[in-house]
Amino acid sequence: MADVQTSLYQVIQSLLESKKYSTLRDMLSTLNPVDIAAVFQDLPELSLPLLFRLLPKELAADAFVEMDEDAQELLIKGFSDRELKDVVNELYVDDAVDLVEEMPASVVKRILQQTSPDMRKMINEILKYPEDSAGSIMTIEYVSLRPKMTVDEALQRIRRTGVDKETIYTCYVTSEDRRLLGIVTAKSLLLTPGDARIEDIMEDNVISVNTFTDQEQVALMFNKYGFLALPVVDQEDRLVGIVTVDDAIDVMTEETTEDIEKMAAIVPSDKPYLKTGIFATYRQRIPWLLILMISATFTGLIIQSFESALAVVPALIAFIPMLMDSGGNSGSQASVTVIRGLSLNEIEFSDLPRVLWKEFRVAILCSATLVAANFVKLLLIDRVSLQVDLVVCLTLFCVIIIAKLVGCSLPMFAKKLKLDPAVMASPFITTIVDALALLTYFAIAATIIGL
Amino acid sequence: MADVQTSLYQVIQSLLESKKYSTLRDMLSTLNPVDIAAVFQDLPELSLPLLFRLLPKELAADAFVEMDEDAQELLIKGFSDRELKDVVNELYVDDAVDLVEEMPASVVKRILQQTSPDMRKMINEILKYPEDSAGSIMTIEYVSLRPKMTVDEALQRIRRTGVDKETIYTCYVTSEDRRLLGIVTAKSLLLTPGDARIEDIMEDNVISVNTFTDQEQVALMFNKYGFLALPVVDQEDRLVGIVTVDDAIDVMTEETTEDIEKMAAIVPSDKPYLKTGIFATYRQRIPWLLILMISATFTGLIIQSFESALAVVPALIAFIPMLMDSGGNSGSQASVTVIRGLSLNEIEFSDLPRVLWKEFRVAILCSATLVAANFVKLLLIDRVSLQVDLVVCLTLFCVIIIAKLVGCSLPMFAKKLKLDPAVMASPFITTIVDALALLTYFAIAATIIGL
Repeated sequence: MADVQTSLYQVIQSLLESKKYSTLRDMLSTLNPVDIAAVFQDLPELSLPLLFRLLPKELAADAFVEMDEDAQELLIKGFSDRELKDVVNELYVDDAVDLVEEMPASVVKRILQQTSPDMRKMINEILKYPEDSAGSIMTIEYVSLRPKMTVDEALQRIRRTGVDKETIYTCYVTSEDRRLLGIVTAKSLLLTPGDARIEDIMEDNVISVNTFTDQEQVALMFNKYGFLALPVVDQEDRLVGIVTVDDAIDVMTEETTEDIEKMAAIVPSDKPYLKTGIFATYRQRIPWLLILMISATFTGLIIQSFESALAVVPALIAFIPMLMDSGGNSGSQASVTVIRGLSLNEIEFSDLPRVLWKEFRVAILCSATLVAANFVKLLLIDRVSLQVDLVVCLTLFCVIIIAKLVGCSLPMFAKKLKLDPAVMASPFITTIVDALALLTYFAIAATIIGL
Repeated sequence: MADVQTSLYQVIQSLLESKKYSTLRDMLSTLNPVDIAAVFQDLPELSLPLLFRLLPKELAADAFVEMDEDAQELLIKGFSDRELKDVVNELYVDDAVDLVEEMPASVVKRILQQTSPDMRKMINEILKYPEDSAGSIMTIEYVSLRPKMTVDEALQRIRRTGVDKETIYTCYVTSEDRRLLGIVTAKSLLLTPGDARIEDIMEDNVISVNTFTDQEQVALMFNKYGFLALPVVDQEDRLVGIVTVDDAIDVMTEETTEDIEKMAAIVPSDKPYLKTGIFATYRQRIPWLLILMISATFTGLIIQSFESALAVVPALIAFIPMLMDSGGNSGSQASVTVIRGLSLNEIEFSDLPRVLWKEFRVAILCSATLVAANFVKLLLIDRVSLQVDLVVCLTLFCVIIIAKLVGCSLPMFAKKLKLDPAVMASPFITTIVDALALLTYFAIAATIIGL
């Protein structure tokens, strides 16, 4: 909860207690709907319907959209049919779809009953696209123009129909059969003489996405091109909707959180941390903990099989954590860098040789530095024998190189195999590198000390 | 390099070799400047100036902005003064500032010589703001309106001055002394009768940021409110510039990459992976590797001091990796979740008790599951003694709980101390948890087995 919200919360609480409803109404009307939603969610459930009814109609609908699903459900259950109708008919189609997707079936039934037939048709249209596709996040409320219109006619059309459109700043020029011919920005409409024809001023090399394009790719296109909206076409190249930049930003944040969670061995969830119940959080975390615990058993087995050797030179045991951790950290650095590059489309599978060659050289530099520091420390501070020092340093050298190469290549192979590269991050890499580090350690020890 | 770019690259290469310049020109003119920049960067350096000169003037400037600094420097060095002037004067001020910040001093001197005095003044204005502040990413090319204007007058003003503005979709209503009074969107200008007064239709509860607001906070506000632009005011509340959503998206991506790098013990860089030289990558990675290697020494010391105990019950050694890894993974899950929550402003320091209580309960569930699985496995598969089994399982139980509590609280304390929470991620947590895990292990072993 941010500071501003905390103080707002207190003001609203005290106005509510002293029943100063008209002051409350005036104050709420000056707020941004996002802030209203944030504060309302934190207030006692009982006061929510009362406060909501104080809001002017349009602001109420805008704030409603921004609330979390628990608050929305609570409000809808308290609404009369009339109130529900008012809110639902103020929604943009994409927000209505989100609502329908999140509410339990009984609530959805009531919502759809209060929705105009047109709106219901549009909602069903969008609901049929797969989750996380461009189709599922688009809106179908855009401004369409015809190529033969003049700029004045286009502006008139915007004035007539614009109020219900999610954006009027990019207009879409379509043919009779809804094929996308070009786009015209509101800026060029405003800066061009009124008698110019749309077909003469439109941009006709339009970048669009398909209804089935993954939402992550859609978000990346906004990132790359700096668009305010992106048209979505169907398999026959007909315009079916648009994605606006605010929705693309939501997707970006959501997908990045998902990546970060996967990198930390967490099964992603789309709820904020503090809103997730402890069983849900447990279910997000336990699968990878179990898998990784069992994998770590192999590392234990390796140690076990060298127990007798360790008994001969017990000094070797003390360096196991350092070797495993340094390997794990080196591998994580490489894997996380590559995973981020892959998800920003900066790296592709065809770059593998370049990446391996680069990581190899970086690994040589890193391991040389670490080995130098370690060699001196082992001799002067730990005062181990030169033989042990050599074993540890040589192992460290090899482990860093192995870790970097494994770390950078596994995410790329995962991508190639259409698996999620983000899973190949620290925890997974660490487990593999641990085992490799120990095998290397004992092999080198056997050679040099002759165990 | 994306697939589309690869094929574009080949087409351009072959047109270039067969000297079909006019075809090349026609083809390039249909492309988005972002794609032109991407392909040009991958072409042989020698052909860059030639290709650039084929582009229509405005497209050339747009593509120039999208190129990386190496390509920009190369082009500028080949430009005549005339050409440089043409490009520079097509730039928006914020892009010109980026250019000046990235080029070496000698190039900057040439750029400023070819810049109009007005533009030079604006560039210097922005350059004085600290790096990563709202002031440093804003543009000062916005549409300003006066409260007493009518809608028609406002539209006329946009038609007259709009072509050079970064956005005309949000207009800023200011007083004589440049104080920000309100905002009007192009949408409301288009949908309101022409004789209405601006002061009557403007939104006067404006959310703005200060020139010194951190750019990450600016980006979060776009994320939260879905704005297309955000006004930037100075200490006296005078409007000095605006940040547009495309720049906010760049900041978002950049800051997230930085967070992810820090979480993987990498010193952040703002260059894409494949563009970073090996020495630069080495310098990003070696500091944390060294620090963490030295910290891991403490873990080694703990093992060393228990060497005699381990010699008595050597079976205990084999479970060290499993205990350390499970602890590390549990801690990482908690820390990464909290770090992400902190950077999205979903969690604040005041939530610490809630977070600790939640993590404690999740930890109990996770450790109970892991211990159950482990207890059975140790008895049936590893066939250790019940005593050893008890020691391992009890340690595991404690380690998971310690790891979760340490993992969730360290990032929050870091934030409170104005340090970067992202540093308190997997590698750092792992090192701490490793040491705590071993101390717990040996303490429990001493108690139960009586070493």
